[in-house]
Amino acid sequence: MANPLFERHEATLQQALNAIRERGYWTPYPETPSPKIYGEAAADEGRTRFEALLGSTFDFPGQPPASGLVGSERSPYSGALNIRYPRFEVDTLIAASSAALENWRQAGPEAWVGVSLEILARLNKHSFEMAHAVMHTTGQAFMMSFQAGGPHAQDRGLEAVAYAWREMSAIPAASSWSKPQGKHEPVVLQKNWKIVPRGIGLVIGCCTFPTWNGYPGLFASLATGNTVIVKPHAGAVLPMAITVKIAREVLQEAGFDPNVVLLAANQSGEPLASKLAENAAIKLIDFTGSRKNGEWLEANCRHAQVYTEKAGVNTIVIDSTHDFKGLSRNIALSLALYGGQMCTAPQNIFIPAGGITSAEGHLSYEEVVAGIVSAINGLTADPAKAVEFLGAIQNPGVLARLEAAQKLGQPLLDSHAIAHPLYPEAVVRTPLLRALSVQDQAIYQEEHFGPIAFVIKTSSSAESLAIIEDTVRKHGALSFSVYSTDATVQQQAQAVAEHACVSLSLNLTGSVLVNQSAAFSDFHGTGGNPAANAALSDSAFVANRFRVVQTRRFA
Amino acid sequence: MANPLFERHEATLQQALNAIRERGYWTPYPETPSPKIYGEAAADEGRTRFEALLGSTFDFPGQPPASGLVGSERSPYSGALNIRYPRFEVDTLIAASSAALENWRQAGPEAWVGVSLEILARLNKHSFEMAHAVMHTTGQAFMMSFQAGGPHAQDRGLEAVAYAWREMSAIPAASSWSKPQGKHEPVVLQKNWKIVPRGIGLVIGCCTFPTWNGYPGLFASLATGNTVIVKPHAGAVLPMAITVKIAREVLQEAGFDPNVVLLAANQSGEPLASKLAENAAIKLIDFTGSRKNGEWLEANCRHAQVYTEKAGVNTIVIDSTHDFKGLSRNIALSLALYGGQMCTAPQNIFIPAGGITSAEGHLSYEEVVAGIVSAINGLTADPAKAVEFLGAIQNPGVLARLEAAQKLGQPLLDSHAIAHPLYPEAVVRTPLLRALSVQDQAIYQEEHFGPIAFVIKTSSSAESLAIIEDTVRKHGALSFSVYSTDATVQQQAQAVAEHACVSLSLNLTGSVLVNQSAAFSDFHGTGGNPAANAALSDSAFVANRFRVVQTRRFA
Repeated sequence: MANPLFERHEATLQQALNAIRERGYWTPYPETPSPKIYGEAAADEGRTRFEALLGSTFDFPGQPPASGLVGSERSPYSGALNIRYPRFEVDTLIAASSAALENWRQAGPEAWVGVSLEILARLNKHSFEMAHAVMHTTGQAFMMSFQAGGPHAQDRGLEAVAYAWREMSAIPAASSWSKPQGKHEPVVLQKNWKIVPRGIGLVIGCCTFPTWNGYPGLFASLATGNTVIVKPHAGAVLPMAITVKIAREVLQEAGFDPNVVLLAANQSGEPLASKLAENAAIKLIDFTGSRKNGEWLEANCRHAQVYTEKAGVNTIVIDSTHDFKGLSRNIALSLALYGGQMCTAPQNIFIPAGGITSAEGHLSYEEVVAGIVSAINGLTADPAKAVEFLGAIQNPGVLARLEAAQKLGQPLLDSHAIAHPLYPEAVVRTPLLRALSVQDQAIYQEEHFGPIAFVIKTSSSAESLAIIEDTVRKHGALSFSVYSTDATVQQQAQAVAEHACVSLSLNLTGSVLVNQSAAFSDFHGTGGNPAANAALSDSAFVANRFRVVQTRRFA
Repeated sequence: MANPLFERHEATLQQALNAIRERGYWTPYPETPSPKIYGEAAADEGRTRFEALLGSTFDFPGQPPASGLVGSERSPYSGALNIRYPRFEVDTLIAASSAALENWRQAGPEAWVGVSLEILARLNKHSFEMAHAVMHTTGQAFMMSFQAGGPHAQDRGLEAVAYAWREMSAIPAASSWSKPQGKHEPVVLQKNWKIVPRGIGLVIGCCTFPTWNGYPGLFASLATGNTVIVKPHAGAVLPMAITVKIAREVLQEAGFDPNVVLLAANQSGEPLASKLAENAAIKLIDFTGSRKNGEWLEANCRHAQVYTEKAGVNTIVIDSTHDFKGLSRNIALSLALYGGQMCTAPQNIFIPAGGITSAEGHLSYEEVVAGIVSAINGLTADPAKAVEFLGAIQNPGVLARLEAAQKLGQPLLDSHAIAHPLYPEAVVRTPLLRALSVQDQAIYQEEHFGPIAFVIKTSSSAESLAIIEDTVRKHGALSFSVYSTDATVQQQAQAVAEHACVSLSLNLTGSVLVNQSAAFSDFHGTGGNPAANAALSDSAFVANRFRVVQTRRFA
C-alpha cells in the first residue's frame, strides 16, 4: 500500500523529476505574494503569526529535555526579537535523534519522500509568516524575503527531494537472479535491496539565507531516511525554528517521532556547531558559511559526508556590449541587491584600459565606469524605493568590512547611508565602488562580503579572463558574468568557466541577475571550485546520503 | 554525429543500463573459457602472447620520457617473470596526463564512453592472455584467473561505465528557460550544460585482484572524461600493463593522446603511490589495499575524491540448517578458494555452544565443527584437484600471517602444504581452522588475510549477531553469511546487516559462495562500513567524478 503522503504529492514529484531532466522553468510554489494565489487573508495571517512569535518562548511538543533557553536574534530593521528557544545539550540531541532514527529508517523511501513533500507543501502555506521571519533576521527587504526565503527555498528543497527519489527509485526492491548452467538447471537466487540511511544529518545554517541555503541539505538528508539536527546561525534562528516546527507537526501526524527533526539553537558565540559536528554519530553535514569554518569541518569531520558552501569571489568581465544601458542597470542592481550580502553577488568588475565597443560606439574605461556609477546612483536615488532592494545590513561585521574597504584602492563611488522610511534603526547602505590595479590580488582575490565592489583595469579581456581563471581556481566563485559581443571572447570565457569549473552568465541585461539561481534549472555552485564542494542539487548531492544493503538467498 | 565507438557498442550499453536497473543475471562477457565462445585458437594464442611477455621489456608507443626500468614481479607458481616496465618520474606522469587531458576533456560523454566500451571489448578478446598474467602474478588458479581477471573484471568495468553514462546522460545539453511574467512577455534564457571532468584520476591496485578491483575506478574515471594514471601493485603489474597497453591502442586509433591512460610501475618498496596521490593535480583516487594505506589516503589527499576498499572481517553465523552437508561443503569451499586471499572470504564462524538444529536432527557444536573440518579435508584430499581452487599463496606476508595464526586459540584443523603437480615452487596451503572464545575480540576483530579462519563458540545466535554488529561497525566487512531456518533469526540477521551496513547472504549451499559478487546485480561493498567507503558500483561511485558547467544567455 502506497504511503498516503507520497500519494498526495506524487504528481508534484513527477513534475519535479521532469523539471530536473528538462531543466526549463518550473515551480509549484508561486513567487508572487499575491492574494489571488495565497488567499485574501494569507498576508495578514502571516504577519499576525510572526508578530505573535515576537517576545515568545518557542517550544516543540515532544521535544527532549531542555537545559535552559537561548535567543539573541536582532532584527536588522527593528532590534531585539526577544524570542527564546530551548537549549539542548549535544548528548541530548544525539540521543533523541538516534532514538527517532530507529522507526524512521524502517519507514522506507515513499514515507521519507511523502513526509518531505508534505512539509514543503505546508511551508509554502506559511510563506508570509516565513517572509517576515526571514526579513527580520537576515535584513532582506520584504519581497526578497518572501521569494528567496519562501517559494525559492521551497523549490530548492523539492529539487533535493526529487534527486533523492530519482536515485533511490533506481534501486529495485527485489530481483530474481537466474544464472544459466549449460545443460543443467540455472542457479537462481532471490535478491532484495534495502535503502538504509547514513544516520544523523546536521544542517549548519547561515544568517543571510537560512532557508534557501538550509533546505537542500535538510530535505536531501530527510528524504533519504536520515534524521536531521538543524543548527541555525544564532543570528537567524527563527526561519529554521518555524521550519522545524512544521516538520515535526507533519512527522507526528504521520506517526513518527517528531525528534526526526530537531532544532539546536545556541546563544551567539557558543561553539555548538563544531561540538555537534565532531560527534561520531553525525554522518552527514551540510554547511553554509565562512571558508574557515567550512574547511575546518572538511578536515576534522571525516566520520561524516560533508557538503560545504563557503566563500567565493564572483566576477564580471566587461568586454563589449550591444546594450550599455541595460548592462549598467543590470550590474547596478546586482551590486545593490540585498547590500551585496549574497554568495552570488559580483565583487570584481574587470574592464579593459582601452575601453569597450558598444552599440553607441567606443566607450572609454572612464565612460564604462561612469555608466555603472550613474546607474547605481539612479537606482538608489529614491530612499523609499531603494530600501526595497537594498535591504538592511545584517550584522556589524558587514559594516566593519564596508568601512575597511573604503580605504582600499582608489575611490569610484562612495557608499552612503539611506534612512529607512519605516525602520529608523535599520542600517541601509548603497554599494561602494573602488578602483584597483591588477597587482592588487591580495585585495581582490579575497571575498569582501557586503556592498563592496572593485573595478579592475586590465590591459585586455584576455588578461581579465586569465586573472579570473586563477582567482576561481584558488579562491572559488559561485557566479561569473561576461559581457561580450565577440564570439572569440565568449569562447575564451567559456573555456575559463570550464577549466575553473564555474557557471557562466553571458550578456545579462533586464531583469535576470547573475546573483539569481533558479531551482530545477540552474545548478547553484559546481562543486568543482573552492567556493563549494557540492552543487545544489545533483546526483552527487544525494547519492551518498543513503547506502544499499542487499540480502540474497536461494529461491 | 554520433561517436563511431559509441555507436558500435550502444546496444551493449543499453543492455548494461537495463541490467543495473533490473539487477538480474546478465553479462556480455562469457565466463567460460570455451573455444566455442572465444574461438578455437584463443587459448593457445593467449598462452603464446603471455609467454612472449616473459623476460621482455614493456614499452608504450607514445609514452613520455622514461627514467629507467623497473620490474620485480614473481609468479607464485614459477618464480621471477623478468618483465621490465618503463619508470616515469611523478612530474613526468603528471605533465603527460595533464597534456593529454586537454583534448580528452573536450571530447564529451559519447567519446569517453565509446572509447571505454571499445577498450572493454578488446580486453575481452585478450581474456586468455590476461588469465595467464593474473595467474602468474596473483597466484590464483587458472580458472579463477580467467573468470575473475577477465570477464568478471570486464563486467565490473562495464558496470561503472553504465553508471557513468546514466548519470551524465541525465544532464541535458541545452534547454530554453522561459519564465512567465504575467501580462508581459516571458523572460527567456538559453541554457547549456557541459560535463567537465575532475582532472587526473589515480588507480592504486592490489596484488590479488588487480583487474577486478582496478577496472571500476579506471573505467568510472575514464568514462567521465578524466585521464587516468594506473599505479599497479609492484607484485602484480602485468595485468594492468596489458590493460593500459590496450587502452592506449584504442585511444590512439580514436585520435586521442594515448597518455590519457598511463602506467606508473614501480620497483617493490618504492613509495610511488603516495607520492602520486599527494600531488594536487590528482583529483580522483581509487584504492584497493590495506586499511593503513587507505586511511592515509583518506586523511591526506583531500584535494581528491578518494574511493577506498580496505580490510574487513567477514563472518558466518551457523544457527540452523535444512542441509548440513550442503552448508559444510559450501563453507569449506568459501574458506579454501584462492587460499582465503579474497576480500570477501569469510574468516569468523560463529556457532552456538548448544549446537544447532538441522534436517538430520540436533547437531552439537562439536558435530558442526567436525562437519566443516571433514568437508575441508574432503575437498583438499586430492592435490591435483585441490590446487585448482586453492591457487598459490601470493606473497610471504600471507604465509607469515598463516604461521602466526597457528598459535592463536585452540587447534581445530591444521593447514598443510600441497605439492602442485605442475609447479614445484608454488606455495599451496589448505585452510587453517582455530577455535576462539568470544573474549578473543583482539584476535577475531582483526583481518587475518589468507587461509585462516576462526570458529567462535557463543552462547546463542543472538550473541553471535550482536558481536558481528559490533565487529562490522568498528572493523568493517565485505560479506556476511547466515545459515538459519528460523524466521526470527533471519530477521535479526537482516537487522544487523542493515544497522552495520553489510550485505547478507542467507543459507548459501551448492555452487554460490559468499565470496562471489556478480556485477550488474550484487553491490560489492556498501560504502557504509569501514571496509570500503564506496560500493561497486552505484551512482555515488560515479556522480562526483565529473561536474557540470552551465552557460546561460538571453535567447
